[in-house]
Amino acid sequence: MPTVNGLEDFRYIDQVERKIEHVKQRASVRDIAAETGVSIATVSRVLNDHASVAPRTRDLVLQAVERRRQETPAKVRTVYVRCPYVLTDYFGLIVSSIAETLKLRGLRMLLDAGESGQHSAALRGLTDQADVDGAILILPPEEGGELVALSRAGYPFVVVDPRVLPLPDIASVSAAHFAGARAVADHLIELGHRDIAVIAGPEEWLAGDARLAGHRASLAQAGVLLTPDRLRHVEPTVAHGARAAVELLALEPKPSAIVCFNDKVAVGTLQAARERGLRVPEDLSVAGFDDIDLAEATNPRLTTVRQPLQEMGSIAVTQLMRVLDGHRPEALHIELATTLVVRDSTARLEQR
Amino acid sequence: MPTVNGLEDFRYIDQVERKIEHVKQRASVRDIAAETGVSIATVSRVLNDHASVAPRTRDLVLQAVERRRQETPAKVRTVYVRCPYVLTDYFGLIVSSIAETLKLRGLRMLLDAGESGQHSAALRGLTDQADVDGAILILPPEEGGELVALSRAGYPFVVVDPRVLPLPDIASVSAAHFAGARAVADHLIELGHRDIAVIAGPEEWLAGDARLAGHRASLAQAGVLLTPDRLRHVEPTVAHGARAAVELLALEPKPSAIVCFNDKVAVGTLQAARERGLRVPEDLSVAGFDDIDLAEATNPRLTTVRQPLQEMGSIAVTQLMRVLDGHRPEALHIELATTLVVRDSTARLEQR
Repeated sequence: MPTVNGLEDFRYIDQVERKIEHVKQRASVRDIAAETGVSIATVSRVLNDHASVAPRTRDLVLQAVERRRQETPAKVRTVYVRCPYVLTDYFGLIVSSIAETLKLRGLRMLLDAGESGQHSAALRGLTDQADVDGAILILPPEEGGELVALSRAGYPFVVVDPRVLPLPDIASVSAAHFAGARAVADHLIELGHRDIAVIAGPEEWLAGDARLAGHRASLAQAGVLLTPDRLRHVEPTVAHGARAAVELLALEPKPSAIVCFNDKVAVGTLQAARERGLRVPEDLSVAGFDDIDLAEATNPRLTTVRQPLQEMGSIAVTQLMRVLDGHRPEALHIELATTLVVRDSTARLEQR
Repeated sequence: MPTVNGLEDFRYIDQVERKIEHVKQRASVRDIAAETGVSIATVSRVLNDHASVAPRTRDLVLQAVERRRQETPAKVRTVYVRCPYVLTDYFGLIVSSIAETLKLRGLRMLLDAGESGQHSAALRGLTDQADVDGAILILPPEEGGELVALSRAGYPFVVVDPRVLPLPDIASVSAAHFAGARAVADHLIELGHRDIAVIAGPEEWLAGDARLAGHRASLAQAGVLLTPDRLRHVEPTVAHGARAAVELLALEPKPSAIVCFNDKVAVGTLQAARERGLRVPEDLSVAGFDDIDLAEATNPRLTTVRQPLQEMGSIAVTQLMRVLDGHRPEALHIELATTLVVRDSTARLEQR
């Protein structure tokens, strides 16, 4: 046995592992011999390219070797994808796109999905998982510091829709939230609206922040300031949207338009308006955000902002591939364009 | 080096692997020494329970060992989950539930999602993946024979919502499609409807078959036969639903109710009715199937059949755990109850 001196230990391990490799090769020589009915010595001669083997025997052995080679699966890279939310129309589309793109590139996806992921300490165990090569983290709930630590530890990962910025040296992909929100507010201002209330998402969410800034920027350009009574922060559900809309519609004067930073919240707003006897868009314009399937099911159909969910997923994979290959991503933070989709829930402000 | 004799080879591998294990333990002794600032000899004495170590040093070393033990992950089982569809509100909820349940039980999920999965030969490679322990296949597109072959090869897997039945000796979970469709037809018959058209899903789909049988059974009990002109088979989208509804609403006499075997198809039907100037539910009753988020976003809100998507996911995991542990699942085919959800899109037939 070697001493406990570290270097010697490592040399010893290396030496032993090489011996095992050697023995395994021999085991495979034995298997091929058994499979072909040729002696081990002959198989060995074929593999060492000796001329003394009959062509037929040689072919027999080489075919068996080739079969074995094909049967041995190449090492497939595995990517850990975490989406700590239920895979509904929004997150489900991002994850589907990541899944398709990884598969196309020959990688496997280890998925951690569902809300329980928000309370687990998944990141801490990541670096220990020897069979996982890198990660894609969707809207990670962790503090920025934890992500930076993971990056400094040299772990390859990409963030989709980061909650906080800047994340030094961490590749990330998100939608152009600022531009999207500004586009929808610009659209309403062009229709003559000035009193445009907002039902935003939970506070302390980077995308929400950016959207609110886009909204304020558009209003400011028209000489309007968003007053605090015209702003609500809610969880992104129909019920929360309806409650917030009831409050906004009780204000004096009543806003002429409500922008919701989520389509489900906009559905709740449509319901609240209907219950109050308001016609949309004649008495109230309503806009959503995301353009999930829901937005076309409502009556009137929702004006909303389409997010590039599929592109976010596929670009995240492309970014990660570069990081895995040891390159620095070309652009550390990629922001993808959003599209204003004008449907039937917004209209020109009626003169009263 | 040993000879190429098989038995000796194996003995040699065994011996070498034990040596590596031994060296790795020594490596860990070295790490603990480095971590605690205690000599290697002392760490070794603590581990071998020598009395000659100071209690404080002993505690220090044992705490470090315990930390290491906790950090070393146990072998984690990995389950391959295939959902060859985009993860929207329907399939996304099933996959989220599978993800949460697997995690809760300490298993990892290797997910293959997205429509490209319908054309790949994923099943054939399954048995070769040594690091995957079993599979959950959601609505598999394969012929029954391929699934039976996988089962006969001894591969542990469970099918969610099988396309074909019977699948001998294969554990499966699905919703009570027959009962769900019968419940919605019974509801309409109780409201006085007799001429109830159906927009069903694509043909050759087990669930669609079962739903159609449930619909026919309900009508038959009221003495009514579904005529072929009152039946359409379409892809489950809003646009396909609208097209089929336009055809059905042009029939003479016009059906007084349309049952859709998918909520999106029902949304299309609502739109077609609106464009024809028909009021729902006064002039036409419309029902959906699935109860995805969409069903509450429409105006009127949809009467539909709730599918137990989350339960399907969690029960599939429970079934698979039994199969993985070498047991036969308690019930090979589990059918979960559906619930009729009556909202505002169905009403009593007006006497004309």
